[in-house]
Amino acid sequence: MNHDKWIQQEFRRLSRSLGFRYTSSEEIKNRITKIRAGMETKEIESLLVIQKMNFYYLSGTTQDGLLFVPLEGKPLLMIKRELERAKVESPIKDVVAFKSNRDIPSLIQNHFSKLHQSLGLELDVLPVRDYFKFQELFPVTKFIDASSILRETRKIKSSFEIDLMRKAGEIGKKVFQKGKRILKKGMTEIEFGGLLEAEAKKYGHEGLLRVRSLNYEAYTWHVLSGLTGGIVSQSDSPMGGLGLSPAFPVGASLKKMRAHEPILVDFGTCFHGYQADETRMFSIGKMKQKFIDAYEACKEIHDAVLEETRPGADCEVLFVKALRLAEKLGYKDSYLGPPGLQTRFIAHGIGLELNELPFIAQGQSNPLEEGMTFSLEPKIVFPGEGSVGIENTVVVTKKGYEILTPVGQKIFQV
Amino acid sequence: MNHDKWIQQEFRRLSRSLGFRYTSSEEIKNRITKIRAGMETKEIESLLVIQKMNFYYLSGTTQDGLLFVPLEGKPLLMIKRELERAKVESPIKDVVAFKSNRDIPSLIQNHFSKLHQSLGLELDVLPVRDYFKFQELFPVTKFIDASSILRETRKIKSSFEIDLMRKAGEIGKKVFQKGKRILKKGMTEIEFGGLLEAEAKKYGHEGLLRVRSLNYEAYTWHVLSGLTGGIVSQSDSPMGGLGLSPAFPVGASLKKMRAHEPILVDFGTCFHGYQADETRMFSIGKMKQKFIDAYEACKEIHDAVLEETRPGADCEVLFVKALRLAEKLGYKDSYLGPPGLQTRFIAHGIGLELNELPFIAQGQSNPLEEGMTFSLEPKIVFPGEGSVGIENTVVVTKKGYEILTPVGQKIFQV
Repeated sequence: MNHDKWIQQEFRRLSRSLGFRYTSSEEIKNRITKIRAGMETKEIESLLVIQKMNFYYLSGTTQDGLLFVPLEGKPLLMIKRELERAKVESPIKDVVAFKSNRDIPSLIQNHFSKLHQSLGLELDVLPVRDYFKFQELFPVTKFIDASSILRETRKIKSSFEIDLMRKAGEIGKKVFQKGKRILKKGMTEIEFGGLLEAEAKKYGHEGLLRVRSLNYEAYTWHVLSGLTGGIVSQSDSPMGGLGLSPAFPVGASLKKMRAHEPILVDFGTCFHGYQADETRMFSIGKMKQKFIDAYEACKEIHDAVLEETRPGADCEVLFVKALRLAEKLGYKDSYLGPPGLQTRFIAHGIGLELNELPFIAQGQSNPLEEGMTFSLEPKIVFPGEGSVGIENTVVVTKKGYEILTPVGQKIFQV
Repeated sequence: MNHDKWIQQEFRRLSRSLGFRYTSSEEIKNRITKIRAGMETKEIESLLVIQKMNFYYLSGTTQDGLLFVPLEGKPLLMIKRELERAKVESPIKDVVAFKSNRDIPSLIQNHFSKLHQSLGLELDVLPVRDYFKFQELFPVTKFIDASSILRETRKIKSSFEIDLMRKAGEIGKKVFQKGKRILKKGMTEIEFGGLLEAEAKKYGHEGLLRVRSLNYEAYTWHVLSGLTGGIVSQSDSPMGGLGLSPAFPVGASLKKMRAHEPILVDFGTCFHGYQADETRMFSIGKMKQKFIDAYEACKEIHDAVLEETRPGADCEVLFVKALRLAEKLGYKDSYLGPPGLQTRFIAHGIGLELNELPFIAQGQSNPLEEGMTFSLEPKIVFPGEGSVGIENTVVVTKKGYEILTPVGQKIFQV
């Protein structure tokens, strides 16, 4: 059988029957319209989208390729591999094959009968070596950093995107329910984490949690029990955990979980690229009162922030309000980490990547807007003992918010 | 309890008791000696190591930080988070805390009483925006691309590294044995993949397979059954599979596995950052003779390459030899992919990343050397029907090779 023909004839039906949802033409059109407004403001005449999540956002496919968006005229989708599949996945009409980045200038020249004077690139992630090559390929073009245009546009989610995040949240609910059924004394943190992940995968969880960073990595198996919950590591998080080795010094470890310890499970799920992130507490038998009290404090802080969550609320004001409440509740030296190691945010934007806008954080005096999505995670850490916390992913609605992670907030005690 | 004190007093014992292996001072010294030889050749007076895997390779830790290596004098480890843990994990003696990249020039100035005239950077991965900031921070320094020095040094593995890869291979063996016990008709590809991964995690598999690339991602759940094995996708691999969505269009899908289909499982394991990669075939009942024959051909090609694997053998010659054999065996139009979509390598170097040197590939006329490690993976693809293949990770020894993935090569038929 010829591969191209098979894809043309069978792929759409097969993929849809197995749950694939494709981004509509209108959705892509809306996104490109917003991007163009940003380009106009920055006086960028054309944009080359390279990084996988920006590329998916604007094309609907993650086949290996690039998207060229001129300020005027139709976008051009250039595909290295695999062309026929990209044609099914993307609603963009002008699609061409190419083999090497060297072909890009002539493809653009052929398609638009000119090379544009300025070209936006994603300089927040594009490697220097690639940049130098583009400079050779476009010797008279002015390059402009377009990262912030993409980042700003992506921070407001459409109802299509929110629905995918809701679906990710529903997978999370099944994961925590499974956790309650399988947790037992003597199981290692990583064994528990692995089984939770296997459960999530059954429902289409994609396993890789993407982050926009050279070195920062995300993972779902963040299971910390007792003293491993008190360990800070390289991640910008109140507690990193022990991890499995110096090469992976965060998250679940080979430590066995014991009765009465606080067991913190911070589990991200991903559906069609869109993530939902949530944290709940487990215990085998009742955990010590100290941890129960601290968990209640986290819930109180969480609820206090949500009470003020609506369009127009200032992110820094929310952060400071939560901080003051934590201090009032007696957790000045354990809220968001041990003294000297405390993190300076309680919520991160989330969507295709785990570190999107907005941040509810110190120094982030920006208003919340309808359609923003973030994961709110007040946490309390006691070195040598353990940690507790709660996390939910929410979307800002016209008048308030909606929680996208619908699992119960009681401690999962087995 | 104070976090710093707890780390200083308890962390080494706890982590060692849970399986952590630390890189020795001698190991790090040997690596830095080799890197310096490369710096001398390229006339680089100092090197700033940023990317996580290069940083781990030269420091023994993956805490958030940077390593500065002068051509003369001791290396300086700069840590953002978490300092005390980095001190336990790295044998490097000179360790300082810092908060922002803005502090780097003064840290270097204080430590070495000068700023060096040239600075090597990893321009193959460093984002442009960071590069521009370094230009501001070091206004009179000459920047030189040091990527190839690190890549060339890392391609030869020490016995310490090979031992970690052997351990990853042993985890793989347990995974495939588990696969034989749990595979059953009607299970989806992704459910099977998720359970295999959970099994690997139990033994310390780290879940993230690192790749040196902006957009290329690796994952362990590459389970393709019947027709999904005939689908090419964005990855530079003979078959990509259906995947779970347009955002993750590779690997296992929600398709149910049926009797008599070829089920290809390409599963990478990771121990202390070091990977082993292998592929085996499963089937529920006997698979069609066509696939059994093609699998036998893959084994024959695999064995023919290994027969010539020893120091001095030329990578391109090996690739061409394998290609000719595939043609002779009647697989010209299905070997390494469908016509027009065939990949041009049968082995990739492997270690901390999945795309290290060497490549046994067209255009790669380079000799194998003792201590190189690669994953050899001849595969055969029939669009609309399925695919087969075998893969083992091997190390080149003084006189030949050693297989690091010790699982049996018969089809796992249940």
